[in-house]
Amino acid sequence: MRIVTLDEQSKKNIMSDLLKRDPNNYTEYEDTVQAIVDDVRKRKDTALFEYTAKFDKASLDASTIRVTDAEIQEALSLVDPNLLAVMKKSMKNIREYHEKQKRCSWFDSKPDGTILGQKMTALESVGVYVPGGKAAYPSSVLMNIIPAEVAGVKRIVMVTPPGKDGKVNPVTLIAAHLAGATEVYKVGGAQAIAALAFGTESIPRVNKIVGPGNIFVALAKKAVYGYVSIDSIAGPSEILVLADDSANPHFVAADLLSQAEHDELASAILVTTSMEFAKKVSAEVDGYLPKLSRREILEKSLDNYGYILVTETMKEAIDTVNEIAPEHLEIVTRNPFEDMTRIQNAGAIFLGEYSSEPLGDYFAGPNHVLPTNGTAKFFSPLNVDDFVKKSSIIYYSREALERAHKDIETFAEAEHLTAHANSVRVRFED
Amino acid sequence: MRIVTLDEQSKKNIMSDLLKRDPNNYTEYEDTVQAIVDDVRKRKDTALFEYTAKFDKASLDASTIRVTDAEIQEALSLVDPNLLAVMKKSMKNIREYHEKQKRCSWFDSKPDGTILGQKMTALESVGVYVPGGKAAYPSSVLMNIIPAEVAGVKRIVMVTPPGKDGKVNPVTLIAAHLAGATEVYKVGGAQAIAALAFGTESIPRVNKIVGPGNIFVALAKKAVYGYVSIDSIAGPSEILVLADDSANPHFVAADLLSQAEHDELASAILVTTSMEFAKKVSAEVDGYLPKLSRREILEKSLDNYGYILVTETMKEAIDTVNEIAPEHLEIVTRNPFEDMTRIQNAGAIFLGEYSSEPLGDYFAGPNHVLPTNGTAKFFSPLNVDDFVKKSSIIYYSREALERAHKDIETFAEAEHLTAHANSVRVRFED
Repeated sequence: MRIVTLDEQSKKNIMSDLLKRDPNNYTEYEDTVQAIVDDVRKRKDTALFEYTAKFDKASLDASTIRVTDAEIQEALSLVDPNLLAVMKKSMKNIREYHEKQKRCSWFDSKPDGTILGQKMTALESVGVYVPGGKAAYPSSVLMNIIPAEVAGVKRIVMVTPPGKDGKVNPVTLIAAHLAGATEVYKVGGAQAIAALAFGTESIPRVNKIVGPGNIFVALAKKAVYGYVSIDSIAGPSEILVLADDSANPHFVAADLLSQAEHDELASAILVTTSMEFAKKVSAEVDGYLPKLSRREILEKSLDNYGYILVTETMKEAIDTVNEIAPEHLEIVTRNPFEDMTRIQNAGAIFLGEYSSEPLGDYFAGPNHVLPTNGTAKFFSPLNVDDFVKKSSIIYYSREALERAHKDIETFAEAEHLTAHANSVRVRFED
Repeated sequence: MRIVTLDEQSKKNIMSDLLKRDPNNYTEYEDTVQAIVDDVRKRKDTALFEYTAKFDKASLDASTIRVTDAEIQEALSLVDPNLLAVMKKSMKNIREYHEKQKRCSWFDSKPDGTILGQKMTALESVGVYVPGGKAAYPSSVLMNIIPAEVAGVKRIVMVTPPGKDGKVNPVTLIAAHLAGATEVYKVGGAQAIAALAFGTESIPRVNKIVGPGNIFVALAKKAVYGYVSIDSIAGPSEILVLADDSANPHFVAADLLSQAEHDELASAILVTTSMEFAKKVSAEVDGYLPKLSRREILEKSLDNYGYILVTETMKEAIDTVNEIAPEHLEIVTRNPFEDMTRIQNAGAIFLGEYSSEPLGDYFAGPNHVLPTNGTAKFFSPLNVDDFVKKSSIIYYSREALERAHKDIETFAEAEHLTAHANSVRVRFED
């Protein structure tokens, strides 16, 4: 794995290299996606079934697009009981963590006759996109559905593309069922996003769409944003390990590889103050490679976006972390808790030698849907707040408004909004 | 003001009428806006100054684009001291309300050696767009800047288009200064949004852009979403009053007019169970019109999007409110607090006869930047959370990971992510 001694120029090159992974750059597909979205908006089910035939080679209609109870029962019989048991343990942890994110409505009343507050209301309906294809990611199903269910969303609609046989992956289906999906439809791609945003005869529209997908799904989500809410647009995965020479190079190398295996755009970066440690990790990575089943992907992603960066000081190392704003950050230093205090930008922060990143992907409880591609500077992990909206509450008594009305009139008049001023004034005329 | 007895058909017509106001429909400007955004991204300051000369007829360069302390002092001398005093009272209320929204980072530690938590971190930098033009809206400046300041954002960058004289409206400038803007630049339109998103030689890039603007600004914000975060895309304003026959028609009519005066796309709707009350309000509205300075706008917006809707039952009335999901909702019924419990979708809820909507625009404290055009189904008022992001915190001891590692391996293997499984396994091999 390549080692780079960090200076201003190498940092700049690496940052611009990482930015190349940005899904916003794939504008070439925008028109195609917009055309699909517009078509589904207009021709609804008819368009939906046509695209499903075209892209998924599956023949579906209004009577077969929705997954039935019988199909769920069939899927249940196909899932490894051992995996099922693990999924249930994992779900318990995810629920418990997300329960702690729930917030109460609040109000503040004062004896001057005023009440101000914030009412928290769960969204009524949410759509969850789950990718299809060869691999099933039940963990991702749990991570997207459980926060919505904990928030109190009434309708949780999952969509996922069918195989040629018109069936949905059984593990995906069972994960959705256990997590609390209320409806599952066999449809994928940009056409599924359009259906969720605008509704069709078979699929009712929802208030918000979440869940990962390929570039067509990501662009479709961007296209419908405003008509519905969306989660942040997911990019390729990344891990950054911040380590000093106290860390175990064998463990760190394994953790870097864990994210690099996702796909060729995945990024794995070690930032360390020790050149000696850097060399050890590089050698460890090379040692693992022949033993790992996804070697081909690993070699490509390391070649593309894998770096071991060596800095002079821990301060420089932390500045680099904050600039990259990684999706996953492991801090494996002598004092990870103290170093954590200086982290401004990261999706999830794993502290110490035994908090390996896959622990967060599968088990611990915090969400694994995280801001990628530097968006941890402004986005957050998927969480219960994403499925709750706020309404401001305002109550003033006659006396309270009387004390304020002249001020309100002055302010409104200054903005030349005379009907605003009038609406307060008329209450104190006689 | 027109009165409509609500049935399924009239409801459908009105809903589709209201949806016509959607800024997402102005796709005709998208290419123009994208071209400006791309140009500023590439040519930076040079493009910025060209567009400012073209659209604002103001000649600015790197030495004059940023507002100086001397300009702030000059502006201060131009603002009415009475307005200044009111603005300060209002700011105190806005700060106090938003302070209550602040949330602590939290963690949950268990004696099994695990720590899970959520770290709250203010965004480092935010851009606030403030429209220029003839009218100044200092209240909007306060409402956009104060939540960022309360959240702890270090750099709060305001942009606003200059007049032909290259100067910024003094009231806007003073509001920004008082509220806590750290920098103000004289630039507007799509070019200002592009500068904030990508940075130029004069304007450093920010993490998030908030604030209202015209259609070019709204489309530019949508175009840069993903490179930065944005607040929700603002549409035209609206008020909905839910009233029974106990309400005062003179007050209700004045409140409907207060929002209708904003512009010709503004919407004012009364939903009531009483035809008698409906008629009284309609007559009151007609009575006010000749006395109000913005009569021309008022007549157009009432004609376009003003309705008095009469329902048979309170349940129907409340269902209609939830379907429209108004930006501002006044509940003027015998028991407004109880009726509030049934409101699923609304930006701000004003309770009772003396909680007139402009109280919220100018004075009470809750934010007046609210979800419009039915987006209250999924968006919230601007609030402190909009300027804070979360990072998950995960710590497992050796023993804690040891108890979990087989489960994690099972789950990862089921997803064929063998390097994920490996990274946990290697910690317990010897």
